[in-house]
Amino acid sequence: MRITPVILCGGSGTRLWPRSRASRPKPFLPLVGEQTLFEQALARAGDPAVFDPPVVVAGAAHLRHVRAQIGAAGRARIIVEPAARNTAAAIALAAASLPEDALLLVCPSDHHIGDPARFVAAARAAADLAGQGWLVAFGIAATTPETGYGYIRRGEPLGAQGFRVDRFVEKPDRARAEAFLAEGGYSWNGGIFAFRAGSFLAELTRHRPAMAEAVRQAVAAGHAEGDLFHPDATAFAAIAGESVDYAVMENTDRAAMVPVDMTWSDIGNWQALHAARARDADGNAVLGTVELVGCRNLLVETDGPRVSVIGLENVIIVVDGNEVLVTSADGAQLVGKLTGAMRQ
Amino acid sequence: MRITPVILCGGSGTRLWPRSRASRPKPFLPLVGEQTLFEQALARAGDPAVFDPPVVVAGAAHLRHVRAQIGAAGRARIIVEPAARNTAAAIALAAASLPEDALLLVCPSDHHIGDPARFVAAARAAADLAGQGWLVAFGIAATTPETGYGYIRRGEPLGAQGFRVDRFVEKPDRARAEAFLAEGGYSWNGGIFAFRAGSFLAELTRHRPAMAEAVRQAVAAGHAEGDLFHPDATAFAAIAGESVDYAVMENTDRAAMVPVDMTWSDIGNWQALHAARARDADGNAVLGTVELVGCRNLLVETDGPRVSVIGLENVIIVVDGNEVLVTSADGAQLVGKLTGAMRQ
Repeated sequence: MRITPVILCGGSGTRLWPRSRASRPKPFLPLVGEQTLFEQALARAGDPAVFDPPVVVAGAAHLRHVRAQIGAAGRARIIVEPAARNTAAAIALAAASLPEDALLLVCPSDHHIGDPARFVAAARAAADLAGQGWLVAFGIAATTPETGYGYIRRGEPLGAQGFRVDRFVEKPDRARAEAFLAEGGYSWNGGIFAFRAGSFLAELTRHRPAMAEAVRQAVAAGHAEGDLFHPDATAFAAIAGESVDYAVMENTDRAAMVPVDMTWSDIGNWQALHAARARDADGNAVLGTVELVGCRNLLVETDGPRVSVIGLENVIIVVDGNEVLVTSADGAQLVGKLTGAMRQ
Repeated sequence: MRITPVILCGGSGTRLWPRSRASRPKPFLPLVGEQTLFEQALARAGDPAVFDPPVVVAGAAHLRHVRAQIGAAGRARIIVEPAARNTAAAIALAAASLPEDALLLVCPSDHHIGDPARFVAAARAAADLAGQGWLVAFGIAATTPETGYGYIRRGEPLGAQGFRVDRFVEKPDRARAEAFLAEGGYSWNGGIFAFRAGSFLAELTRHRPAMAEAVRQAVAAGHAEGDLFHPDATAFAAIAGESVDYAVMENTDRAAMVPVDMTWSDIGNWQALHAARARDADGNAVLGTVELVGCRNLLVETDGPRVSVIGLENVIIVVDGNEVLVTSADGAQLVGKLTGAMRQ
């Protein structure tokens, strides 16, 4: 069994503004540790004993970041999205570019995974089920009642390593999220999927025939340029963008899940990034020239100016170029609505 | 009666760091309104019907600021302190350079006074008593139990406008400050004094004879250079620096005070500056490109970068060149101890 990683590089760069920008979105930043999230995504799925060279799906605006960071995964194929059309179409481009029986592992590159070995083990389990025709979601151990994630309710077991999906649940409110945790049987949907290329395209054709046809045309009329593949822009632009969850996973009767507990975060805002970072005994995580006096649970990072902080708790401070962000931890979810983040 | 303002320009530039710096201390910054504190000090004592041209006492490092800001008070004499030796010696330099019967009004230039008309009225009352040989302190209406100010306890009345000083009280703890307010009869000592040049020098000679002699020598051996006067550096350097309160006011039996209520602040830290500034309905005071979302009682100022703030209360944020300060209001008193403020 060989697995082909499909690395998705999306994102508008607003929720981790001002570090992330439209021109330099989240995957291409070293948010946790010294590697960027994209580099970490490649490295996680980089063991040649398990994985074939990846397929990277990225917008033209971000190709320079992909080139600069692709490193040892240099044999990757890169599919250049002619326009942003959400994950269903991006995955379909990869699937339509690969043999029907290729086993795809779809990996968003804007997440953090603390335990890569468990990721690989789950990938193998998911690929096993995918080889039997299932469309398999990673069901990530839900450790807190998050309201920012979708959930997966597990159904009947499928052998030793997985389950049918009983249903996908959209982002719940706090009370429902707490009920999910109390009840058990619910996992987070992290957007990581495994399936055969042919299985995915068959289900896409069944549930979103127009999208499937447009992708086939875009690939048929596309052209290669070295390791780049450019799908036909006109055919692709006609697609109505939809997430793979809405377009396929919530509709197919072949949905399965494999449970995995791998210290996962989608780093959806600065508060989540703070939680994913290494912190000192006072809960502070700092990068750059920073002096803290009497502070607890701070995230402070600066690309140049010294930042001196006194007497604050649960605050996030980011200095990046000509922008300074200071927010309460709770306020972090509103960062994307700031003028600076919106008008990029 | 004519009064000669003696404008003192001192300060190490640490408590309002990073806006104030050693090279650009508090008096020379537009901290409240569009004029600098030094310009406001000159303007307050600028009515030619009452005041003679001022004597400005400043260090050599700050002459360029004095020159740039002295404006309409261009007929000022400027005494260049050869070294920083605290207020007693600085005032003595001015007194020894003026006729014995000149009425001096000593004005620190790092304070804010909201009601200049009351300042002038008090200056006239103080000058009246000074003309009778008293060394007169402004007794500023104590409106809150401040622990950062010295206090003056009033004694017997001296005519209609003033009182003998019963005693000067050093910075009290909170409980004593509250007791002072409850008891009445206590005012803040704002470092504003009136006396005849001769009276001051006589009391200095009585209580600090070595300092008085060193100042006389420094003036006698000094030299003029246009409107500048340079006291002799060697003689002046020998002085042990002391505040005018310690050296003279707390020792003399000719101490008087005039009460004045003029919305005064020494702007001793960022929290005090916030209180002196105009604020919006949410208590926020901002300067520069700033976006606030759900914030109350913030002071935010930036000399360039945009500052975006979400969900904070009672916080001070200052962006100045290569320094960013973020402090709780209570933490403002610790700003002078920051590495950036200390290592200038």
